[in-house]
Amino acid sequence: MFEVISSAKIPELTIGIDLGGTKINIAIIDTSGNAATIVDRLRIPTNTSGNSSFIINDIASAVKQLEIRLGHSCSHLSVAVAGQVETDSGLVTFAPNLKWRDVPLKTLLENCLAKKVFVVNDVRAATFGEWMYGIGKRAQDAICLFIGTGIGGGIVSKGQLLQGSNNCAGEFGHIVVKFGGRLCGCGNRGCLEAFASGTAIGKAAREAAENSPTDGKALISAAGGYGASINGSHVSMCAKNGDLLATQILYEALEALIAGTTSIVNSLNPEIILFGGGVIAGNPDWIEKIADGVRKCALPSATKKLRIAPTTLGEDCVLLGAVGLRL
Amino acid sequence: MFEVISSAKIPELTIGIDLGGTKINIAIIDTSGNAATIVDRLRIPTNTSGNSSFIINDIASAVKQLEIRLGHSCSHLSVAVAGQVETDSGLVTFAPNLKWRDVPLKTLLENCLAKKVFVVNDVRAATFGEWMYGIGKRAQDAICLFIGTGIGGGIVSKGQLLQGSNNCAGEFGHIVVKFGGRLCGCGNRGCLEAFASGTAIGKAAREAAENSPTDGKALISAAGGYGASINGSHVSMCAKNGDLLATQILYEALEALIAGTTSIVNSLNPEIILFGGGVIAGNPDWIEKIADGVRKCALPSATKKLRIAPTTLGEDCVLLGAVGLRL
Repeated sequence: MFEVISSAKIPELTIGIDLGGTKINIAIIDTSGNAATIVDRLRIPTNTSGNSSFIINDIASAVKQLEIRLGHSCSHLSVAVAGQVETDSGLVTFAPNLKWRDVPLKTLLENCLAKKVFVVNDVRAATFGEWMYGIGKRAQDAICLFIGTGIGGGIVSKGQLLQGSNNCAGEFGHIVVKFGGRLCGCGNRGCLEAFASGTAIGKAAREAAENSPTDGKALISAAGGYGASINGSHVSMCAKNGDLLATQILYEALEALIAGTTSIVNSLNPEIILFGGGVIAGNPDWIEKIADGVRKCALPSATKKLRIAPTTLGEDCVLLGAVGLRL
Repeated sequence: MFEVISSAKIPELTIGIDLGGTKINIAIIDTSGNAATIVDRLRIPTNTSGNSSFIINDIASAVKQLEIRLGHSCSHLSVAVAGQVETDSGLVTFAPNLKWRDVPLKTLLENCLAKKVFVVNDVRAATFGEWMYGIGKRAQDAICLFIGTGIGGGIVSKGQLLQGSNNCAGEFGHIVVKFGGRLCGCGNRGCLEAFASGTAIGKAAREAAENSPTDGKALISAAGGYGASINGSHVSMCAKNGDLLATQILYEALEALIAGTTSIVNSLNPEIILFGGGVIAGNPDWIEKIADGVRKCALPSATKKLRIAPTTLGEDCVLLGAVGLRL
């Protein structure tokens, strides 16, 4: 595991791209000095036909437009993809949201744009971005956990992203917190993602409201009267208003998250763990609750130097990290 | 996390010590060439009075005896301790089996023996030994899991032991595999160690035999007629003879171990995981069962390059690893 990405210097102005399932964020980034500044940016919708040439052409057009506005051509481009990536070859092996399998993204973009292209997984890029340009850099080593629709993360050790033997280190959503427990989308049972992701929280709430519409009254009402439409945000909202069922559902998700974080802390003994993603944004009080829980559950030696904090960069951490990984 | 231990060259003949709770293994090791050869060795009982000066004196006498037999004085000594170690300072912060707290082992041994002394945790040393001198070295990165009385392990990444922010990375026994589950010796609930360690297997068997002496007949008989004496070895033995209760108890321990290993594989995406320790020695068929289980439960991308194998060096991996860490 733990392949280290090349640290060759790149020019100070570079292009960072966050290629997601619904939108593509493209930015010109100035990396001179210690900070990274977004000089200009464009956001375009993602073509999800599964035909990668549409996305390649859309990116090429946007990059040209930004370079014309800038009056300068950049020699390097870093792209973070919501999918499994072989970083060395720049092959995207699987990106379900893009309907891609084995797309040689690096080669396609290099041929189209005549630039040096670097490809990385988006969650790993986000982790590195938070470490390099956010609060993480003040720590020697950092772990990020993004709790959103799904759960993913990354590990930075001594300033290097740990990639693993197959570029997928950091899949913390599939830590098993209750073996034999809830079925997860990955096919296994008891994964952290099956308890604490936005998807899991929404599902638990829909099932609970269906089982007891009386207890689920507030949740059903928050979802416009449709129990089948209840999602994670509705649960957070109702819990904030004191609804008992929503509070109980969030409690179990939080217990699972504390268990998963405890596993990470005892296994890796990090200096800092940063939490981001939609579920954390919807439940900002979780940061303190996770910290309290982990301090109670993990080994004292493993928490002696541990800090737990929210991420700070928002969605820009993805393209900033993709660029930072090549610096 | 992940502090890297200095790679300064040391002389080819060096002293390795495995300081355990019942015995101290002391060896002169020749590290010339690619292998490590034990030239001479002594084994002495561990003084467990809690007064570290007895152990220091015992080690000093044994080292002198070995050096006289060798006709040569070694300038370096590496010692692996069954306890929590601050590797930089060589302070043993906590070693329950030795009844030690905050013993400056490096300083004490250096003052007594006039040698350069290096101190490391024994499980981390064993991991490095297995990687460097056992099967692991053929892999770029390796994880070791020792399943014995307790459960511990270590992580080697690109030839470097990952120490963590407080020298305790690798405490895989305290991965939570069932949150809210069985109470663990660490005070938390649902730890892997509370399900799959020799201690946990013995405890589960004693409880089951007490609840149903009829079902527990074979186990009680294996323990000489005393249900309270049933231990992990009795369970393995009875399961081999086809006893149903023993088989069920081992099955649950194995399920927990597969869950914990799945968490490690999905988090760290290693190339190889080596399993050692008494429970694995007593149940050698577990290696294949763990491999099958993990391949079914972990993410396909995380198991693509994964190998699972038994450790190969036996108890010598501890002192070999302690010495290897300084090479």
